[in-house]
Amino acid sequence: MSPIAPLPDFQPATGLLASLDLLRVETAGPVLHLRLMRPAKRNAISDPLLAQIHTVLVNLPADIRAMVISGEGEHFCAGLDLSELVERDVGGAVLHSRAWHATFDALQFGRVPVVAALHGAVVGGGLELASACHIRVAEDSAYFGLPEGQRGIFVGGGGSVRIPRLVGVACMTDLMLTGRVLDADEGRATGLVQYRVADGQGLAKAVALAQRIATNAPMSNYAVMHALPRIAEMAPGEGLLTESLMAAIAESTPDAQERLRAFLDKRAGKVVKG
Amino acid sequence: MSPIAPLPDFQPATGLLASLDLLRVETAGPVLHLRLMRPAKRNAISDPLLAQIHTVLVNLPADIRAMVISGEGEHFCAGLDLSELVERDVGGAVLHSRAWHATFDALQFGRVPVVAALHGAVVGGGLELASACHIRVAEDSAYFGLPEGQRGIFVGGGGSVRIPRLVGVACMTDLMLTGRVLDADEGRATGLVQYRVADGQGLAKAVALAQRIATNAPMSNYAVMHALPRIAEMAPGEGLLTESLMAAIAESTPDAQERLRAFLDKRAGKVVKG
Amino acid sequence: MSPIAPLPDFQPATGLLASLDLLRVETAGPVLHLRLMRPAKRNAISDPLLAQIHTVLVNLPADIRAMVISGEGEHFCAGLDLSELVERDVGGAVLHSRAWHATFDALQFGRVPVVAALHGAVVGGGLELASACHIRVAEDSAYFGLPEGQRGIFVGGGGSVRIPRLVGVACMTDLMLTGRVLDADEGRATGLVQYRVADGQGLAKAVALAQRIATNAPMSNYAVMHALPRIAEMAPGEGLLTESLMAAIAESTPDAQERLRAFLDKRAGKVVKG
Amino acid sequence: MSPIAPLPDFQPATGLLASLDLLRVETAGPVLHLRLMRPAKRNAISDPLLAQIHTVLVNLPADIRAMVISGEGEHFCAGLDLSELVERDVGGAVLHSRAWHATFDALQFGRVPVVAALHGAVVGGGLELASACHIRVAEDSAYFGLPEGQRGIFVGGGGSVRIPRLVGVACMTDLMLTGRVLDADEGRATGLVQYRVADGQGLAKAVALAQRIATNAPMSNYAVMHALPRIAEMAPGEGLLTESLMAAIAESTPDAQERLRAFLDKRAGKVVKG
Amino acid sequence: MSPIAPLPDFQPATGLLASLDLLRVETAGPVLHLRLMRPAKRNAISDPLLAQIHTVLVNLPADIRAMVISGEGEHFCAGLDLSELVERDVGGAVLHSRAWHATFDALQFGRVPVVAALHGAVVGGGLELASACHIRVAEDSAYFGLPEGQRGIFVGGGGSVRIPRLVGVACMTDLMLTGRVLDADEGRATGLVQYRVADGQGLAKAVALAQRIATNAPMSNYAVMHALPRIAEMAPGEGLLTESLMAAIAESTPDAQERLRAFLDKRAGKVVKG
Amino acid sequence: MSPIAPLPDFQPATGLLASLDLLRVETAGPVLHLRLMRPAKRNAISDPLLAQIHTVLVNLPADIRAMVISGEGEHFCAGLDLSELVERDVGGAVLHSRAWHATFDALQFGRVPVVAALHGAVVGGGLELASACHIRVAEDSAYFGLPEGQRGIFVGGGGSVRIPRLVGVACMTDLMLTGRVLDADEGRATGLVQYRVADGQGLAKAVALAQRIATNAPMSNYAVMHALPRIAEMAPGEGLLTESLMAAIAESTPDAQERLRAFLDKRAGKVVKG
Repeated sequence: MSPIAPLPDFQPATGLLASLDLLRVETAGPVLHLRLMRPAKRNAISDPLLAQIHTVLVNLPADIRAMVISGEGEHFCAGLDLSELVERDVGGAVLHSRAWHATFDALQFGRVPVVAALHGAVVGGGLELASACHIRVAEDSAYFGLPEGQRGIFVGGGGSVRIPRLVGVACMTDLMLTGRVLDADEGRATGLVQYRVADGQGLAKAVALAQRIATNAPMSNYAVMHALPRIAEMAPGEGLLTESLMAAIAESTPDAQERLRAFLDKRAGKVVKG
Repeated sequence: MSPIAPLPDFQPATGLLASLDLLRVETAGPVLHLRLMRPAKRNAISDPLLAQIHTVLVNLPADIRAMVISGEGEHFCAGLDLSELVERDVGGAVLHSRAWHATFDALQFGRVPVVAALHGAVVGGGLELASACHIRVAEDSAYFGLPEGQRGIFVGGGGSVRIPRLVGVACMTDLMLTGRVLDADEGRATGLVQYRVADGQGLAKAVALAQRIATNAPMSNYAVMHALPRIAEMAPGEGLLTESLMAAIAESTPDAQERLRAFLDKRAGKVVKG
Repeated sequence: MSPIAPLPDFQPATGLLASLDLLRVETAGPVLHLRLMRPAKRNAISDPLLAQIHTVLVNLPADIRAMVISGEGEHFCAGLDLSELVERDVGGAVLHSRAWHATFDALQFGRVPVVAALHGAVVGGGLELASACHIRVAEDSAYFGLPEGQRGIFVGGGGSVRIPRLVGVACMTDLMLTGRVLDADEGRATGLVQYRVADGQGLAKAVALAQRIATNAPMSNYAVMHALPRIAEMAPGEGLLTESLMAAIAESTPDAQERLRAFLDKRAGKVVKG
Repeated sequence: MSPIAPLPDFQPATGLLASLDLLRVETAGPVLHLRLMRPAKRNAISDPLLAQIHTVLVNLPADIRAMVISGEGEHFCAGLDLSELVERDVGGAVLHSRAWHATFDALQFGRVPVVAALHGAVVGGGLELASACHIRVAEDSAYFGLPEGQRGIFVGGGGSVRIPRLVGVACMTDLMLTGRVLDADEGRATGLVQYRVADGQGLAKAVALAQRIATNAPMSNYAVMHALPRIAEMAPGEGLLTESLMAAIAESTPDAQERLRAFLDKRAGKVVKG
Repeated sequence: MSPIAPLPDFQPATGLLASLDLLRVETAGPVLHLRLMRPAKRNAISDPLLAQIHTVLVNLPADIRAMVISGEGEHFCAGLDLSELVERDVGGAVLHSRAWHATFDALQFGRVPVVAALHGAVVGGGLELASACHIRVAEDSAYFGLPEGQRGIFVGGGGSVRIPRLVGVACMTDLMLTGRVLDADEGRATGLVQYRVADGQGLAKAVALAQRIATNAPMSNYAVMHALPRIAEMAPGEGLLTESLMAAIAESTPDAQERLRAFLDKRAGKVVKG
Repeated sequence: MSPIAPLPDFQPATGLLASLDLLRVETAGPVLHLRLMRPAKRNAISDPLLAQIHTVLVNLPADIRAMVISGEGEHFCAGLDLSELVERDVGGAVLHSRAWHATFDALQFGRVPVVAALHGAVVGGGLELASACHIRVAEDSAYFGLPEGQRGIFVGGGGSVRIPRLVGVACMTDLMLTGRVLDADEGRATGLVQYRVADGQGLAKAVALAQRIATNAPMSNYAVMHALPRIAEMAPGEGLLTESLMAAIAESTPDAQERLRAFLDKRAGKVVKG
């Protein structure tokens, strides 16, 4: 594997995005970096932090084409701030969980792909946040768990929808019933993460991936983010029809026609063994 | 990995559960151990053995909160007793398979989580039984196969529903078309089992896991057993709503509120790297 | 792992199958070997090549019971011939993709199982072809990618339906967003391939598997090809009913009854650790 | 429409079925008639009444081949006994609803088809019970509603699963949001009931239908009860495969072969306009 | 049917809602009335009109508990403003349709139920808007069609998702292939509308329904809007579990407990024939 | 309703289509008329007749844009020729049913819409054939039934997939359990047919509809035939994405752009009440 490029020169975001006190938002060209800034609480997601993430997603600058999420301090994110769950009535608890869903759906089905740079604790709601991203990079220090089972509660941030699609129901059942904690290598083996790097290299790797993603045709990225996961949900007979429609649209864009001509004119590279 | 605790002191079950001649049923506190006792037939599942398993499930003592299944002798279970399939008419064959489904559904969607301790042959109907459990522990000696393809028949105990959800359709296709046999490590790599231990340690590991599971809030275990696999089946938009309902219920129980307060008061441990 | 048997003596097919200029078709007993013969184009799939594959599938000799697909030259198949996509209108593009679907559905849901012998590039449409086969064998040289993301297009040969069922949506998302290329071992770890062999041994392994598959009862192979993947798509409650029907039919065939009696008379082998 | 035949001579059931104090169970040949006997409470379904219905279903005499359900007094069934819902904790409420599901699933997916004879109030849980039957006959006096919306609660006896499959989500939404009550003719027009008769004729019509149903081949009735609703749930590509399996099994039974020969020998009637 | 109550005294909305020039927004107690105000264009939905509807939905006053939509002039809404579709590239066309989906999803899955008062043309996008509402009332003059088939286009405002769930695929196929137009009675018979009134009475009927809906417990209305349609989408086995969760939550609210006690104390009415 | 136009001047098909002895095939402009010609057997579908229908579908002349199916003699089609089911083994019975599926799928998902003109018996396999068409017209004499229940068999021509999508599972359950026969008006009320005409007018009405359908843009007809029923099967979240793709493609065709301009230039008619 080739060495990871050094981080580009990130600049603080301006305007509304600069006003969010629980996040640090900065950009380098087409890549935006959102950093959870609640290290004293192991970046636990309180309602205000959740709202600030949602705010970034609906106010993404027009020139941003890929995004990275990371956490300040020793941990990516240790989950939901459990004080949010105490003394809430059952109806309010439903709506509380639905607000998490609205934010994480805005992340997964947003305008740009998101790469998560993971280290330290990635547990509970932190794992739910990570699983809503499109690609996950884990440092050696990363570990994964779902302590909800021990706390007497259940996941409420989309974890029961997204985590089984990464690792299967049996693995998630094990994590919740036994409190098992997976280390970074186990996270890779089970499918929780796609990239493994040494401690301190997660952000650089995530940014490098985001930079590459930003060079794709926007319609291709749209197709991968919006059509691919939905086609995979459909019965095969229905999915194939949708694939044909998506393929026809993508290849009909001027962008694709230009890229195809570049390839046929041998101005673009072939795929070679990595 | 920490050493596995010695087995607790199991006592034979009494009453109806003591009368089952093809099983040995014993309990230690909240954990029940069901052992297949047909070693001369490699614990092949005959109709009477199937009925006895079903009987245990519908007569589980009220204080039991987790369960372990294991097999006496050199093998966990070598499958369906094939003599059951000869000279049965096609209508009767449908109902025979449906009786397996009723028993294994009672296991998967019962009241308490079940851990399987696997060694030796875990093939055919034995693999179907194992895949209906919630967690699987495999000793070195364990091996996995689906000889139905070579016998000219098809799985009929839920295997085509549960095994692809563990290993994927492609792996199960390979097992059935080619008669391939997976060893314990391959079973781990493909997702068939969640824990790998040395020969002779499977039961102790399974019991230790069951003891830990028995300490969870009952509503959390219910949510993991009943809601999680069903949410994972739903289209995401529908699954998220169900997750919110399940989460709201779990966190509204007095048990959860007490556990949350213990955590917030720092009377409960944080998740740390295993 | 035992040594792979030498290739049997393949004879060229005759009649219509001998007239296809972009393929080489040959048979050895019940096994048919179809070889892509466009090595100068890295076996890229043009419309005529696609039509020739479809032609083989609808004209399979009656005595063939298993099939192998391989590629001539240094690569299995480098994908769709991209010149097919230029200057096609959007309606025509839909129908073009649907023709790929018709061919690959005829492969997946045909009369006989198909084993793919993979080496070199298995990318884009080549990976879509491989994923429509029932079992995949990869040599050391094999590598896997989906360059569609970089070309500005989207998969149109069933890739978004079949590849997530092998490796998950997250892995396919990574391949498409970042242009990542997997080597043979990564292909094995992610579930893309079921068998890994040294360079030069892929065809022999694939043929050996096909020979073994050809000895199964035809109804068992039909059940694995046609019922298993569809049952796996169904909600569990519906899938179990279908499994019971399929099991009852398979075990009611004279072929199955004879094989069951052979087993009960101890004329057939037990499953043993591989 | 031809006149409805007079009721056959029903005899009280014996043994366990005679001991149920909230029901009256009687049989005439292959038809069993279960009558709700709590008229002072408008046959509201209390937990004991629910358990008694379940008891009948799991103790159905072997010679019974069809069943009729009716209600004593002025109403079929006015729903759940609401006193069951007061002071129950949220976890207990989940299990309470699941017990209704177990009983009504045993009815819908039991061994014999069930015809409901409806008159007066068929509301709330009473409509849920009726919708779990296979055929519904309504007298002029019958009316249908879901007052749960006005009571501040939600259906919990399978109504949200079964009623939209009869009348559509929009109609059920209207019933629940506005408290609308449908009369017998509106019940027929929306699909809630299949037969409309004058007051006092519901039971005779239901019994006549049950007698006719009892003459069908048991495998045909099994296919209609167990396979048809599940096939209808499947994606079409999957449903068609299951239909082929079910059809092959049904037509392979000796019963079907005899009936087919009778038809071909002109010993059975053709279908003619009613 | 009882006479429809006269309209309550509606007051113009204030603030942001008063600033929308293509709508008239007014309230009477807990009911908000949104009126399309583009009669010269037969209330065709342009992009600005769509955005104004979305704006109302995300700025609904907190005390509103039900909503009515109607159209000024001779028609409810004659559809999409077709000038929006000319000279839009294919990628832009996808996003244009997705904006319709976002608005109509906000309507269907919003906070309060919506009743549509329909008269005159309810065609194309107008029918898509109506079908996203929870209840539809049609005056004699109302007629329904999908001229997209004749225009060479396809529905893009959710029509292919919502209209088949009201009338079936066969009816929608007929409307689109042949240009068939349904009158108000046919709309009632096919399930497009739930209420039929004389010309000039649609708004009063819709408001009366909305007033009644506004008296329900908010959690019951939430359950009907959010849980019921999703449960109906699920496979039955999964839907039943979700129903139990929703029922347990609804009946655990203080509101429900109070209403149940009122009923048991005979302070609330029984359901009687309408 | 306006009077039905007289039949256009149909000419016999030539070439292969003229050689089919169990059908009469004729064309008038863009409309092809296929007539079942086995009146002495009430047009019962034998294997040769099924194969001839399939042959027409795969050899449709390029200028045909819509199709009508009718039956010679007193009945449209009395079903499967039951002699096909006798003495067939269970494996062969599966493949026999699958051949019906292949033919009727080729009809439903073919290149042109198909209108069925129904009279007399439309029962069993005849009803399955009719339900695979896109629009159904029934004369007064038409009647509908599924005698499979009485014959001891089950539907095998797609009936359990297509008929519940027209009339619901409850109605089909009634037809199969009780042998109920629906007349033409009941067929209209339950959704089996879309148009009702007097005896002798079915063919003229069907041809008039086909002529109108033939004037639509081919991409619109493709969208209605191929995308609409599949979108309706998908979960709503997935269906909406597919709708957007299909709408974007349809409106991007030159044909649609020309039709939209004609409308905007007021060269095309508005939708008016029929």
